[in-house]
Amino acid sequence: EDVVAGIRTPQPIAALQRDMPEIYGQFTGVCNLLEQHYRDMQDVEFTVERGKLWILQTRTGKRTAQAAIKIAVDMYNEGLLAKEEALLKVEPGHLDQLLHRRIDPAAELNVVAKGLPASPGASSGMVVFDADVAEKLGQEGKSVILVRTETTPDDIHGIVAAQGVLTSRGGMTSHAAVVARGMGKPCVCGCESIRIDYEHNQFYTEDLVIKQGDIISIDGAAGSVILGAVPMLDPVLSPEFQELLVWADQVRTLGVRANADTPDDAAKAREFGAAGIGLTRTEHMFMAQDRLPIVQEMILASGREERQAALNRLLPMQQGDFYGILKAMDGFPVTIRLLDPPLHEFLPNAEDLAVEITRLRLTGGDKEEISRKEELLRKVRALSEFNPMLGHRGCRLGITFPEVYGMQARAVFQAAARLVEEGFNPVPEVEIPLVIDVKELEFLREEVTNAAEEVMKDTGVKFHYTVGTMIEVPRAALLADEVAAQADFFSFGTNDLTQTVLGFSRDDAEGKFLQDYLDKKILADNPFMVLDQKGVGSLMKTAVELGRKTKPGLLIGICGEHGGEPSSIEFCHGLGLDFVSCSPFRVPIARLAAAQAGIKV
Amino acid sequence: EDVVAGIRTPQPIAALQRDMPEIYGQFTGVCNLLEQHYRDMQDVEFTVERGKLWILQTRTGKRTAQAAIKIAVDMYNEGLLAKEEALLKVEPGHLDQLLHRRIDPAAELNVVAKGLPASPGASSGMVVFDADVAEKLGQEGKSVILVRTETTPDDIHGIVAAQGVLTSRGGMTSHAAVVARGMGKPCVCGCESIRIDYEHNQFYTEDLVIKQGDIISIDGAAGSVILGAVPMLDPVLSPEFQELLVWADQVRTLGVRANADTPDDAAKAREFGAAGIGLTRTEHMFMAQDRLPIVQEMILASGREERQAALNRLLPMQQGDFYGILKAMDGFPVTIRLLDPPLHEFLPNAEDLAVEITRLRLTGGDKEEISRKEELLRKVRALSEFNPMLGHRGCRLGITFPEVYGMQARAVFQAAARLVEEGFNPVPEVEIPLVIDVKELEFLREEVTNAAEEVMKDTGVKFHYTVGTMIEVPRAALLADEVAAQADFFSFGTNDLTQTVLGFSRDDAEGKFLQDYLDKKILADNPFMVLDQKGVGSLMKTAVELGRKTKPGLLIGICGEHGGEPSSIEFCHGLGLDFVSCSPFRVPIARLAAAQAGIKV
Repeated sequence: EDVVAGIRTPQPIAALQRDMPEIYGQFTGVCNLLEQHYRDMQDVEFTVERGKLWILQTRTGKRTAQAAIKIAVDMYNEGLLAKEEALLKVEPGHLDQLLHRRIDPAAELNVVAKGLPASPGASSGMVVFDADVAEKLGQEGKSVILVRTETTPDDIHGIVAAQGVLTSRGGMTSHAAVVARGMGKPCVCGCESIRIDYEHNQFYTEDLVIKQGDIISIDGAAGSVILGAVPMLDPVLSPEFQELLVWADQVRTLGVRANADTPDDAAKAREFGAAGIGLTRTEHMFMAQDRLPIVQEMILASGREERQAALNRLLPMQQGDFYGILKAMDGFPVTIRLLDPPLHEFLPNAEDLAVEITRLRLTGGDKEEISRKEELLRKVRALSEFNPMLGHRGCRLGITFPEVYGMQARAVFQAAARLVEEGFNPVPEVEIPLVIDVKELEFLREEVTNAAEEVMKDTGVKFHYTVGTMIEVPRAALLADEVAAQADFFSFGTNDLTQTVLGFSRDDAEGKFLQDYLDKKILADNPFMVLDQKGVGSLMKTAVELGRKTKPGLLIGICGEHGGEPSSIEFCHGLGLDFVSCSPFRVPIARLAAAQAGIKV
Repeated sequence: EDVVAGIRTPQPIAALQRDMPEIYGQFTGVCNLLEQHYRDMQDVEFTVERGKLWILQTRTGKRTAQAAIKIAVDMYNEGLLAKEEALLKVEPGHLDQLLHRRIDPAAELNVVAKGLPASPGASSGMVVFDADVAEKLGQEGKSVILVRTETTPDDIHGIVAAQGVLTSRGGMTSHAAVVARGMGKPCVCGCESIRIDYEHNQFYTEDLVIKQGDIISIDGAAGSVILGAVPMLDPVLSPEFQELLVWADQVRTLGVRANADTPDDAAKAREFGAAGIGLTRTEHMFMAQDRLPIVQEMILASGREERQAALNRLLPMQQGDFYGILKAMDGFPVTIRLLDPPLHEFLPNAEDLAVEITRLRLTGGDKEEISRKEELLRKVRALSEFNPMLGHRGCRLGITFPEVYGMQARAVFQAAARLVEEGFNPVPEVEIPLVIDVKELEFLREEVTNAAEEVMKDTGVKFHYTVGTMIEVPRAALLADEVAAQADFFSFGTNDLTQTVLGFSRDDAEGKFLQDYLDKKILADNPFMVLDQKGVGSLMKTAVELGRKTKPGLLIGICGEHGGEPSSIEFCHGLGLDFVSCSPFRVPIARLAAAQAGIKV
């Protein structure tokens, strides 16, 4: 008690060995016994009174992720644990600490301010003070750091678009901190030594003025703000970590793939042990600066012919995208989802346009420019939607504009044909999003199959491909027996499925009322981070049962964000899914969680 | 054949009786036999050749709705049919013809143009040329007639807000005609004698100029356009129609209620035989011109106190609303749904505000006005949502602002207490919208129960009430066993349930891609008009089974638009629902369809 009360200072354990070798021998004996009994590292309290050893308390020791891995591997090597037991000793969620980018320790850093280390990882980008600007620059492919006194739910879209967040106010549970951790983005918060001047779009440190557009770096694990870009190191796995993951792979039956939209991400995913790509989003490819104007031409085309002309220019670019990804994943399956988001996401904002037109009119602007912008505004308005999430997107685009999906399918198959010719083994899986009825799939499957046959005929090359569907709308799950008849695979899009099953728009829920739901304990977890097993999960179960009733061996995976969350992975294992797919950096977490799920059952 | 070819003109049947009484006797004998055999009115082709009667063909006769009713009632009275058989002779959907408002035949009409009779019914209103303007005026409670050359999907919100639609181009299957018929609104289309001048906001008839804001009337059954307002007659039911409906009520087990938001609608519903109100939407009450400013104060309040002050002013108004409706439905249940739509629907449009601010700035507008509008824009932006349908609405408002639901519950109960004191028998059913989890219902039920107890204590009056929930989000249906524990009743909101199960925003689907789905036969019907039995229906079945597993006698109804559609009513009967609820004018259709569903089973 004196120790706990701080009255006496304990001595290092080595002092015991030196001063009381006999007691030390007794003590190590007891410790070994305890570790063998509890099969885990123990945190043992003891005292020595009048030459006699008293064991006061023992409990499983707390540890960092890195230590947990080392202890588990050591205990296996010492024969204390079986592999399966060692695997259960590491909490998959904690691995997150080891899987973020960090600043090269050899780098010279110009640290200009210090705040709270609110969310691990490091990143560099242009300083931006406004969420809308961050979103806009993000869409243009720029790296930005969002800098705010505090963030509010209205800034969510800016945080999504930014590489990191810096705030001058608020603690470890402030809005910015909680949101950034949820998204896995670096965040430094409560950085009180900086002063933000929104009016002039700049912030002040003790002796510097940093303007919008200047480059800074933040280290969310250290809480530091650094001037300029700095060299970063991608996370590498320690030998013990690698070993543990090899064991996990031996044990698990659930496959692990990654979500990746670029050859770089695909390569990173391979490095982390992903056995394929479970989701390639093709819309990000359309947002690139050199393509957006052509995409806009396609969208604003006044007829099929004009649209086809724009598509013809996009075709070689898309082919290049798919070539790179399929090559990086040589021999492994790559699920390529055809265009999914509503088209107006590619167009300018109506409000901005309306304001600009008003300004031009009142300041005697160029008549022709005004009428061109008015025409654009008219089209933007015609394409705008009340609820874009439930609007003209996904396979509905493919139904109304089959030529768009046709172009994408052709690009996939041309890339595959070229790779086969070069001696590679591409395994493309073409995925149709937002299906609600087997007839959509039937219609679009034919479009895809025709493209494949054309490319085979044109190139004289045979390649393998499959066509499957996302299950992300309740109706597809409820009618999965019918849908399966036209699908080579199912992939659960649990982000969208959560949105429709709960009637929660993620942006609006996280921005407006979800916190209330968690505070009032109406929901135990954010359903976009931890799968809602009772609601969403029960529909998934229905879909698996119905789908495999029609096709017993149907390949089924999950590619929503939940695919990287341990409790959700355990649930997916229980459902009998074939694979989970998650962001490349979460692949090791998923490999371990999948192994644990198999062991626990 | 000569007759069919038009070479000979047939003679009236009376001529046969006069000229060949014997043949006539034979003929009526055969006809009676045929009618008895087919148990329906027959359309008999015959000829007389050389004094001999030849029956050429017989088939069931085509008829108008009014004739169908008369034939069915006559055949019962003549002993040819049992009541059940007579009820099956009338197509419920056809009754629509008899259930619309029409122009008083005694009125002097100044018909200024004629077009196609595209959708039955008549209405008067201000001429408006723009869907946005129509929507705005509609929200202010104005009656408007939308006048366009043609309508497009972009005009949908204007058609929703208008009392009728007039177009100068397009036929009976043009967009305006199809949409108006779907919504049960009068429409005159293809009115080629008018010329619309959008630039000057007016249209020309042969000799008149009619400006925006002028009042016109249209008769969608006659295709006429009339200058000024004209006296209208509400539909009345013929004695045979009344009799048929009495039989229907004797046969059917499924209850029929109406959706009504005003005492007038409630009275109309009673007149048409509704046994209660299945849905009173309280948001329409908030849109009235005298209330909107107070509602906006409530929404924009900077804290609970300020909000409570606005709510205190709304309380007596809401009490008056509920008093009127409960009184009109004396002795019958009235389901009152607490506030449902997203709050920003009550606020001005962000784009309009942004444009106005730009204009004020560039034209040296009043500084104070600019900053007031900027503050308003900031709040409007903060409340705006990406997908309002899936956003901060329904019981989510009650969770974050319990005082809003508290005020509404108090208003219901104060009205009930006053009616009890006056000797009436109010039966309020308080309904919580958009529930996804039993815990929401538990939390809000307590709020409502507290209000009831307070009112009983304050007034010393006891009254009856129940608290139940909408089932309109998939999760509520999937977890209906849990939800039922806190619910006195379920009511299926099949409009929202269709939106979430199919992932279809109604406005966007009908405006953008649904037509393609129908054309390509991916869907057989518009799922917002005819219930999607396979998808939405299967979830309803689950909810009924689970709900009644927890509470065997649970009262369950449907209040979506499907509650007035015959095939959907038949489906609801099969599910074992207690009632359907539909618009007052469709109550007779529902009564007949419910009876037929009972007979067919």
